[in-house]
Amino acid sequence: MSMRAVAREAGVSASTVSRYLRGELRLNSETERRVEAALKTTGHVRHRNKLRSVALVLPELSNPYFSHLAQVFVEAAQSRSLRTQIAVSNGSREREQEILDWVLASPDVDSAVYVSMSGDQKVLGGVPAHFPLVLLDESLEVAERLQASYVGADHYGGAYQATQYLVSAGHSRIAHLAGPQNLRSARERLSGYSEALQDRGIEFDEQLVLSGPYSEAFGAASLPRLMRIKNRPTAVFTASDIAAIGLISAGQHSGVRIPEDLSLIGFDGIPTGAWTSPRLATVVQPYSELAHMALDQIERQWRGEDTQPFNLPMTVAWGESVMPLQSGVV
Amino acid sequence: MSMRAVAREAGVSASTVSRYLRGELRLNSETERRVEAALKTTGHVRHRNKLRSVALVLPELSNPYFSHLAQVFVEAAQSRSLRTQIAVSNGSREREQEILDWVLASPDVDSAVYVSMSGDQKVLGGVPAHFPLVLLDESLEVAERLQASYVGADHYGGAYQATQYLVSAGHSRIAHLAGPQNLRSARERLSGYSEALQDRGIEFDEQLVLSGPYSEAFGAASLPRLMRIKNRPTAVFTASDIAAIGLISAGQHSGVRIPEDLSLIGFDGIPTGAWTSPRLATVVQPYSELAHMALDQIERQWRGEDTQPFNLPMTVAWGESVMPLQSGVV
Repeated sequence: MSMRAVAREAGVSASTVSRYLRGELRLNSETERRVEAALKTTGHVRHRNKLRSVALVLPELSNPYFSHLAQVFVEAAQSRSLRTQIAVSNGSREREQEILDWVLASPDVDSAVYVSMSGDQKVLGGVPAHFPLVLLDESLEVAERLQASYVGADHYGGAYQATQYLVSAGHSRIAHLAGPQNLRSARERLSGYSEALQDRGIEFDEQLVLSGPYSEAFGAASLPRLMRIKNRPTAVFTASDIAAIGLISAGQHSGVRIPEDLSLIGFDGIPTGAWTSPRLATVVQPYSELAHMALDQIERQWRGEDTQPFNLPMTVAWGESVMPLQSGVV
Repeated sequence: MSMRAVAREAGVSASTVSRYLRGELRLNSETERRVEAALKTTGHVRHRNKLRSVALVLPELSNPYFSHLAQVFVEAAQSRSLRTQIAVSNGSREREQEILDWVLASPDVDSAVYVSMSGDQKVLGGVPAHFPLVLLDESLEVAERLQASYVGADHYGGAYQATQYLVSAGHSRIAHLAGPQNLRSARERLSGYSEALQDRGIEFDEQLVLSGPYSEAFGAASLPRLMRIKNRPTAVFTASDIAAIGLISAGQHSGVRIPEDLSLIGFDGIPTGAWTSPRLATVVQPYSELAHMALDQIERQWRGEDTQPFNLPMTVAWGESVMPLQSGVV
C-alpha cells in the first residue's frame, strides 16, 4: 500500500505521512490518531531504514551506578553498530522534557532509552506512537498508544534478598535507607524490605526507615540519626550503594565500626563498592543484561514488533560489611 | 559584504558558501582554502545563529575522572543554556574517527569538546576551519588552519607538586606509575616527576617507573612488581587516582600497609578518592574551571574570536595515604 493511500485515508498530505513515519514531524493527537488508524486500515508496511542511533537519557553521571550503566550501555550499543548519544537531565522535570523534545525533533536520533528521575510520565506526552522508546530502571504509566516498554532489575526481589540476607546473619533490628519515594523503583525496594521482614515474623518499625536521595551525603547524614534510635539497629540495608559508601565514610569519622557495630548491605553492585574498606556487600544489578535487553526491545520496536516489560533478577554479592550478630556483643 | 561576493571571489556558488558557513557542507581542502581566503578578503562577517549545542567526546565513563568531568561539564553547559550530547570512544582510533565524523555531519551539533585517548591527531583531518572545537585534557598537533584550541590542567606542574610533596615528607625512593606514553599528558606527568626529583638532587631510577593504562587493574598489578625491586620504594606517585585505588585495594589483600609500608599520592582528585581507606592524597584537577574555560573558548570560536591554549593549575589535597618517612622504619 502506498503512502498516498494512507494520506488519502487520513485526510493529510503524503509528505505529512512520510515525515511522520521518519519521526521528523510531531502531529497533534487528533491527526496522529487518524494517521495511525489509516496505517492500520490500509495495511501499510513501515519501510524503515537501518536503525542507526539511540539516545540514552540519564539523571546524572556522578553516581557511579549511572556512569557504569552508561559505559556498559555504550559498549552494548557499539557491539550492535549503534551510535549512542548520552544526555543528562540532572533529575529535573524541565530538563527531562527539554531532552525528550530534542530526542524527538532531532533527525539524528532514531530511538531512546530513558531513565526517569522525576517519576513524571507527562514528559512522554509528545512521543509519537511509532517512536522506539524503552523506559529503563524506572517504569512510568504510559499511554496505551505508545509502544514504549520497560526494562529494569527486579527492585522488589533485590530488596527482599538483601533484607533476608541480613536476617539470615541473625539480625532483626534492620534499618532501611530508602530512595526517593516519588520513584516507583524506590517504593518497590521499600516493599521488598518490609515484606522480607514480615515473612520472617519481624515487626516493621517505621522509625528504622529513612528516605532520601541516592547520594553519599544522604548516607553520611543518616548514620547519626540511626545511632540515636532507642533500641538501635544492628544492620542497615541501603537502597543504593552510593548511600552505603557515604555511611561507611561517616562511620570512619565518628567511630562507628562497620561491620562490628553495624552490618551493612547496599544495592546496585557498583564497581566502587569493591574498593571500600570494608568491602561492601550488595545486591548486583545485571548491567549488561539490562543494556542488551533494552537494545533488543528498541530493535523490536524499530521493526514494528511487540515488546513486553521485563524485570531482571538481582543477586547478592558477598562483602566484609556484613557480619553475623553475636548475642551480647551489641 | 554579501555571501554572493564571497562566492564570486572563491569561484563557488552562494549556496555552497552558505552551507559551508552553517557547517552543513564539508569542502575539499583546496576549495575550503579558497572560501576561507575569500571570506577574509571580502571582510565577510559570519552571521551565526545562537550556539545551541556542544558534543562532549570522552574516552570512557568507567573511570570516575571522566564521569565526574562529564557531570561537571553538563552542569556548566546547562548554566549557559547549551545542550550537551556525550559520545564515548572507548579510546579506539576508529571510534574516535566515527564520532568526529558524526559530530561534523550532524545538523544537531554546533561545536565539540574533544578528549583524545588514542593521541592521534589524524582524526581531526576532516574538521572545517570554522568549526568550534576545543581539545580538552589532551593536546594534539593540529593544522594551523583550525581554530581549535586546548584547555587542560597543568599536567607537568601537578606531577612536579605531587613528587615534591613526597620528597618534603622525607621520601627519596619514589616510584611512578605513569600513564600511557602515547599521550602527551602522560609524558608531561612523567617529566614533572623526573624533574622534581632532579631539582632535589635525587637520581632518577628507571626501575621505579612503570607505565600502563589509567585503570584499577594496572595499579593493582603494579604493587607486587614495586615490592620486588631491590632497595624498594617507600612512596609512589600514580599518574591517575584510579590506579592509586587499585594499588590500595591490592595492598589490603597482600598485607602491604599504606601508608606505613608505602606512601601514596594520586592524580586527578576524583570524588571516589575521599571514600577510600586510607583517604587518598592527590593533586586535584580544576574540574569546573576546565569545563567553563572550554565552553568560553567554544563561545569565542563561535563568534569568530581568537582563542589561546590554557593550562590550569592543580593543587595538592591532603590524604592519609602519605606519611613521613621515619629512619629505620623501612
